[in-house]
Amino acid sequence: MAQNMMLYWGSGSPPCWRVMIALEEKKLQGYKHKLLSFDKKEHQSAEVKALNPRAQLPTFKHGDLIVNESFAACLYLESALKSQGTRLIPDDPAEQALVYQRMFETNNLQQKMYDVAFYKWHVPEGEQQESALKRNKENLVTELKLWDGYLEKMGKGSYLAGKNFTMADVVCFPIIAFFPRLHCPKEQCSRLMEYYEMVKDRPSIKASWPPHWLENPVGPDTLKNL
Amino acid sequence: MAQNMMLYWGSGSPPCWRVMIALEEKKLQGYKHKLLSFDKKEHQSAEVKALNPRAQLPTFKHGDLIVNESFAACLYLESALKSQGTRLIPDDPAEQALVYQRMFETNNLQQKMYDVAFYKWHVPEGEQQESALKRNKENLVTELKLWDGYLEKMGKGSYLAGKNFTMADVVCFPIIAFFPRLHCPKEQCSRLMEYYEMVKDRPSIKASWPPHWLENPVGPDTLKNL
Repeated sequence: MAQNMMLYWGSGSPPCWRVMIALEEKKLQGYKHKLLSFDKKEHQSAEVKALNPRAQLPTFKHGDLIVNESFAACLYLESALKSQGTRLIPDDPAEQALVYQRMFETNNLQQKMYDVAFYKWHVPEGEQQESALKRNKENLVTELKLWDGYLEKMGKGSYLAGKNFTMADVVCFPIIAFFPRLHCPKEQCSRLMEYYEMVKDRPSIKASWPPHWLENPVGPDTLKNL
Repeated sequence: MAQNMMLYWGSGSPPCWRVMIALEEKKLQGYKHKLLSFDKKEHQSAEVKALNPRAQLPTFKHGDLIVNESFAACLYLESALKSQGTRLIPDDPAEQALVYQRMFETNNLQQKMYDVAFYKWHVPEGEQQESALKRNKENLVTELKLWDGYLEKMGKGSYLAGKNFTMADVVCFPIIAFFPRLHCPKEQCSRLMEYYEMVKDRPSIKASWPPHWLENPVGPDTLKNL
């Protein structure tokens, strides 16, 4: 089945990374893939646009099916291959509710991290304002406290939605990995950093680690002054 | 089962509305609920905060389970009550892939609509910039063309992910409903407006129509100059 899959991806893109973790967890090693360069604008190539009118990565194809939104691709893989590899959405309603809840709360953490870490890339130079960046930082600190509180409540050694690695971890880990890389002070998210240390060597995550992070393990310090 | 459910909601909030449509579609009429006022900041009450550390609406409880993210609550309801009411996530892999894809693309449409329609509410007065609002408008026009293109391709009378009403419609309709309400020129999204006319009288949608929209059917004209 994996031979029938094709992923266009960019190194370090959290949406790409989460689809790659899902592919690894579902034992789909051997899927076809093409690493594209955002810097060279390769994601805007005709090849990608033919499959993805947004010209974004990931762009994912399984046979004739195209699923480009990362959450959609992850849910599709779990549903299509429920009994293969890691079970990422549990059957138990209480467990399932928490997995979905943390999955979609990830959008908050992602947006707030982007609003600080990539502020200077996403906001045109003439529109950048110190007051906005300051507020973004405060919002991110509040968000981090929330996640630290979740982990604190779940107890040591817990994954994001309980005792098992689930889809919540698949979609959120690629965001969490930016905090140590971009020099976020540990005290702003000590529980999340314990979680990061626990999960970072998991085979699915190691196998999909962004190649340019391997080449340059230390990232810019955009989260240093949080 | 519905008697065991409690929804805290705000009138006109798309995330609240989509959970209410899902509850109607899954034949859960009779669920308990409490309408709160954003203007009076009732969503920040202790009652809500005890269930939702983000102090946001919707806040949704089923027995002891709490699921506050709207996408999470919708997926949870479908999964817990798969065979009750409307089947919102189809079994067929190709149909399912498209439902998930459009569901999560809704976040793009939502964010781009908010970035124009609520610009003056979300950006502090001293930070508002004409150049940013202009770009937001251009991005929204591009986004609308994409959705119009999807509907054009699917053919007349189609729902967002095919011939049946699915979870894609549940989560996206509350966003689409803002375009006519806020005076978006019809020619910017003619197919979407045909879709809107087709779906707006569906029982689940009529039953959950925002009460303050019923009282004041004409909204502000924040999307007029798109």
